[in-house]
Amino acid sequence: MPDAVELIRVKRDGGQLSEADIRWLIRGYTGGDIADEQISALLMAIYFRDLDGAELSAWTDAMINSGERLNLAGLTAPTVDKHSTGGVGDKVSLILAPLVASCGAAVPQLSGRGLGHTGGTLDKLESIPGWRASLSNAEIMTVLEQAGCVICAAGAGLAPADRKLYALRDVTGTVESIPLIASSIMSKKIAEGTGSLVLDVKVGSGAFMRDIDSARQLAETMVSLGNSHGVRTSALLTRMDTPLGRTAGNAVEVEEAVATLRNSGPRDLVAVTLALATEMLRLAGLSADPAAALADGRALAAYRTMIQAQGGDPDAPLPEARYRALVTAESAGFVTALDALAVGTAAWRLGAGRARKEDPVSAAAGVICLAKPGDAVASGQPVLELRTDDPARLDRAKSALAGALTIGHEPPEPADPVIERIT
Amino acid sequence: MPDAVELIRVKRDGGQLSEADIRWLIRGYTGGDIADEQISALLMAIYFRDLDGAELSAWTDAMINSGERLNLAGLTAPTVDKHSTGGVGDKVSLILAPLVASCGAAVPQLSGRGLGHTGGTLDKLESIPGWRASLSNAEIMTVLEQAGCVICAAGAGLAPADRKLYALRDVTGTVESIPLIASSIMSKKIAEGTGSLVLDVKVGSGAFMRDIDSARQLAETMVSLGNSHGVRTSALLTRMDTPLGRTAGNAVEVEEAVATLRNSGPRDLVAVTLALATEMLRLAGLSADPAAALADGRALAAYRTMIQAQGGDPDAPLPEARYRALVTAESAGFVTALDALAVGTAAWRLGAGRARKEDPVSAAAGVICLAKPGDAVASGQPVLELRTDDPARLDRAKSALAGALTIGHEPPEPADPVIERIT
Repeated sequence: MPDAVELIRVKRDGGQLSEADIRWLIRGYTGGDIADEQISALLMAIYFRDLDGAELSAWTDAMINSGERLNLAGLTAPTVDKHSTGGVGDKVSLILAPLVASCGAAVPQLSGRGLGHTGGTLDKLESIPGWRASLSNAEIMTVLEQAGCVICAAGAGLAPADRKLYALRDVTGTVESIPLIASSIMSKKIAEGTGSLVLDVKVGSGAFMRDIDSARQLAETMVSLGNSHGVRTSALLTRMDTPLGRTAGNAVEVEEAVATLRNSGPRDLVAVTLALATEMLRLAGLSADPAAALADGRALAAYRTMIQAQGGDPDAPLPEARYRALVTAESAGFVTALDALAVGTAAWRLGAGRARKEDPVSAAAGVICLAKPGDAVASGQPVLELRTDDPARLDRAKSALAGALTIGHEPPEPADPVIERIT
Repeated sequence: MPDAVELIRVKRDGGQLSEADIRWLIRGYTGGDIADEQISALLMAIYFRDLDGAELSAWTDAMINSGERLNLAGLTAPTVDKHSTGGVGDKVSLILAPLVASCGAAVPQLSGRGLGHTGGTLDKLESIPGWRASLSNAEIMTVLEQAGCVICAAGAGLAPADRKLYALRDVTGTVESIPLIASSIMSKKIAEGTGSLVLDVKVGSGAFMRDIDSARQLAETMVSLGNSHGVRTSALLTRMDTPLGRTAGNAVEVEEAVATLRNSGPRDLVAVTLALATEMLRLAGLSADPAAALADGRALAAYRTMIQAQGGDPDAPLPEARYRALVTAESAGFVTALDALAVGTAAWRLGAGRARKEDPVSAAAGVICLAKPGDAVASGQPVLELRTDDPARLDRAKSALAGALTIGHEPPEPADPVIERIT
């Protein structure tokens, strides 16, 4: 039988763990036979030493096999999902899932909640009165059949090893490891049973990956892992230096997503959504035109069906914040930068995000970007609007925004929000 | 207030922890407010990133301040102690403490037990009928006043943070870190209250440090730590490629130590003991000649007084093993090498050492080296004698010794067992 200390030392010293070692470690940890302090030391050793391809594949397999796999074989439409590594103002899923569904695919989007400055898709949708994130497997199939898409919480039965490992990584400074991130994401997506998967790997100040090289490495790792496990997988690297769209929060992002489904969304959000939709349809083997489905209202119809099928009222008014404050431009000129991390942190401090997993979030809190890079502003013009239910939060949110907006004499060069595609 | 995850990330990313951070971490861990899994991740990050001088000093201070400090100010003689990083057949303390005491110093040697293939001084002395390792602080002073030396267990009040950290390192693959080793040793020795300290840093197959560079680095780290904390400290690097003396075990080592105190010890053991004694007396400011004190029986008298003061009978027969087995030379020639790790492992498997802290040890088990490097042997001549109370242990002990003894045509170049001195 392997010995946990010996395996920690093997990894610490740069050696390779066998498939059997990894299976034993993940099973022992999930079953409570290997202690937290041993696995956290191993995770830190992995942070420094990485996992090679064979180790990563075995690690991911072990996490998948720790729980059940969803069976989507009963669906006639090809299944395809998207996963984003998280960004500020990233409400893409709310538009993309119904859009791709309206083009003929089935989109089983099992999601998580937000932690830190990036929001969670479920938190956003929960600002819609009546909408339920938790569905049984039978309900997931029903919603998929009715609407062509579902966005719901990944059940406790899916990759429970990942749940336990993620909670440990979160408190031990071992989140930021490419193989650990890749196996965490991919074990859940593979267990979810989707046939194809497009990864939106965000790069920039508001993203998990700050530089293009590590984003590319993460994308390549996940694409390879997906394809080797029978899921057709590709990735887009997209910019996250500035918030996507003009809102960061929960209800405010739902509003912006609905506006986009009504064909009046901000250009960067539409561009990223259509690029991801095109990639998803390509993997699913469908030739429909997503721009047309967005323009003619088919995507909006699928969205409304999905919200209703999950108990939500798409016509109900969303929660409004009780307090608002404005940040104004200090000079005239063109906005050359609006830092995503600063806006995300401000929204978080206003109540839109949580510091700990068990914290509630405020549906109404958030930040509206009244000006974005490229916009001309006059001195004293409002550029950011802060919304919260708790006025005590305004000062700390404002301090996060100090220096977040840069104003110059020339507009910045326009940059394509999609950087590259990795297949 | 600091945040444990944030501090783990600082160290992980190569940053420096402040004195206040370290104090908070050690206090929080000792008090049970910071979880094992966070500290083990931090320890693994330290394994990879090291601690710089200021961090190491703060870490050691925090461990010292986690408990009491012995007050030896009531003694008239200058206090001086020795610490060995551990080797095979290392019974030096049993000779050295009374030898240096008989030269006018007070030697407060608070020791630990053995774990793994290196024996523990307390385990060896406990083979003497009646001898007690656990003394109160008042008893320690009484024995010191009567015999000039004491060898006993470090009480639970001394550096309790180290006790908890060492137990955690032991199960998380984080033992082998120079700053963690140095702070563990030095916190206990500084808390012990000795005025001077000589470190015997062993190098070679049977030692913790296998190569001279890491041994030198550990020695320099500890010497600097001692001197900056008001303890005059120096170190000798000594060879540990082959067992020290001709015995490895418990009672067998006590017998060899007593023979050495009777002036008939093996040359390497005498050389290392006299070199350490000379260094200890130099630091203590005493000019006595340790070779004379060994030759004229003063050291033996101090030893007998110390054993009796701790309840032991120095004239009582020691436990004898019930089973013996011999290993013979496969060819004729000169012994050119006898691997320390192999002999230590064999003694351990015969019952002289423990695999887990809570295991008992056998007083009688051990290995006698009938031939050592430099000795001429005939083919078939006995070269090793194995002793145990449990005959089932003989086979595994013998297998540890396969290839341990090398026989050549020429005797090896004699090597000074003391490699260098570090002040």
